[in-house]
Amino acid sequence: MKLALVIGSTIATIKDEKLSGRKLLIVRESDDTGKPVGNPFVAVDTVSAGTGDLVLVVTGSSARYTDITRDIPTDATIVGVIDSLEQSGKVTFRKS
Amino acid sequence: MKLALVIGSTIATIKDEKLSGRKLLIVRESDDTGKPVGNPFVAVDTVSAGTGDLVLVVTGSSARYTDITRDIPTDATIVGVIDSLEQSGKVTFRKS
Amino acid sequence: MKLALVIGSTIATIKDEKLSGRKLLIVRESDDTGKPVGNPFVAVDTVSAGTGDLVLVVTGSSARYTDITRDIPTDATIVGVIDSLEQSGKVTFRKS
Amino acid sequence: MKLALVIGSTIATIKDEKLSGRKLLIVRESDDTGKPVGNPFVAVDTVSAGTGDLVLVVTGSSARYTDITRDIPTDATIVGVIDSLEQSGKVTFRKS
Amino acid sequence: MKLALVIGSTIATIKDEKLSGRKLLIVRESDDTGKPVGNPFVAVDTVSAGTGDLVLVVTGSSARYTDITRDIPTDATIVGVIDSLEQSGKVTFRKS
Repeated sequence: MKLALVIGSTIATIKDEKLSGRKLLIVRESDDTGKPVGNPFVAVDTVSAGTGDLVLVVTGSSARYTDITRDIPTDATIVGVIDSLEQSGKVTFRKS
Repeated sequence: MKLALVIGSTIATIKDEKLSGRKLLIVRESDDTGKPVGNPFVAVDTVSAGTGDLVLVVTGSSARYTDITRDIPTDATIVGVIDSLEQSGKVTFRKS
Repeated sequence: MKLALVIGSTIATIKDEKLSGRKLLIVRESDDTGKPVGNPFVAVDTVSAGTGDLVLVVTGSSARYTDITRDIPTDATIVGVIDSLEQSGKVTFRKS
Repeated sequence: MKLALVIGSTIATIKDEKLSGRKLLIVRESDDTGKPVGNPFVAVDTVSAGTGDLVLVVTGSSARYTDITRDIPTDATIVGVIDSLEQSGKVTFRKS
Repeated sequence: MKLALVIGSTIATIKDEKLSGRKLLIVRESDDTGKPVGNPFVAVDTVSAGTGDLVLVVTGSSARYTDITRDIPTDATIVGVIDSLEQSGKVTFRKS
């Protein structure tokens, strides 16, 4: 899964009906300190994530393997909110 | 999903029969202001998108999970047209 | 799908039996004028494409969703030959 | 599969229930001497790997093809711990 | 599929049981002359490939579509050994 920072949200009136009612957030892949790297992309939220949260994003076919996204045309789904990251006993990120 | 700008269309007389009658648009991945970045690729349109639209493109196996693209050999499908993008209360893109 | 230019062919006597008799072409991803960019890779041909053709290549699991490649170990399949590409009423590529 | 170095761990209280109880490690893709290259990402551990281990990470849908990760929303799973790597009779990495 | 050069092998005592007895080779993606480019990764061998061979590697879910790798957690499988590559009547690679 990718570590990603939630940076915003999308509004799309015209969209596939199976995406109706789903929250589609803009995220950016992040490094192990929560700093965004790479281009923004859109992920379906399943854990009530908000802007500024560092989240876990699952991509590819596995993005359809949550109860909320089963059989939905999504290739990126937010499946967790990171509380903290640790490396060799040192905390490199903590949710504020 | 990717944010992508529709930049053109393709004509291909010889193609897999399951792609017959499908609109195959040229898109470019875009940033969170709608500015294109990255190489052009081709996506099957399912939402009557047009040139200049910023769209949502789903890739991989999930590109087959719309009613229109079920079991079709597509790895990129347009599943929504972006009305607006917002970051921290600020609109970074609005459909014109 | 990727726009790709067919640049050559491969010969492989030892290969998975399900690939036997399949034409395995070397292609390079191309931009929207047909100019090759990126590294060469190999795709199964299903539309009798030839060297110099600009083609549509479907990747990932969807590469198995043509009648010819069903259940075959391929991650890249040529599914169309491009006649022309158009952007804002201007033709950017035409098959010669 | 990717060669990857385990560099840390994640804590996420809010996460998809199918990920509950799974160890989610931070890894970085590595070269053939075990030196990390590329961005960190998160993988589900199935082999009791620890920080500093060079591991095999399977990505995409195949990340769901272990007994532990069957039907779980994961796109990256640790499936082995590397003891050694060898090139032309020369050991380029050995687990310490 | 990728053109890739076999550069070495891996030893991993601790690994997913479905990978037991499989030869896991280190390969590097190569260009159309057999020259390696890009980072090393690990692929399951199904064609008795050896170091120095230029091979065809299928990635993603299709890596599970050989008789040997059915339902195995692999995302990269060697499915052929290249004898020669040809471009416009000119041989750009020949197995030595």
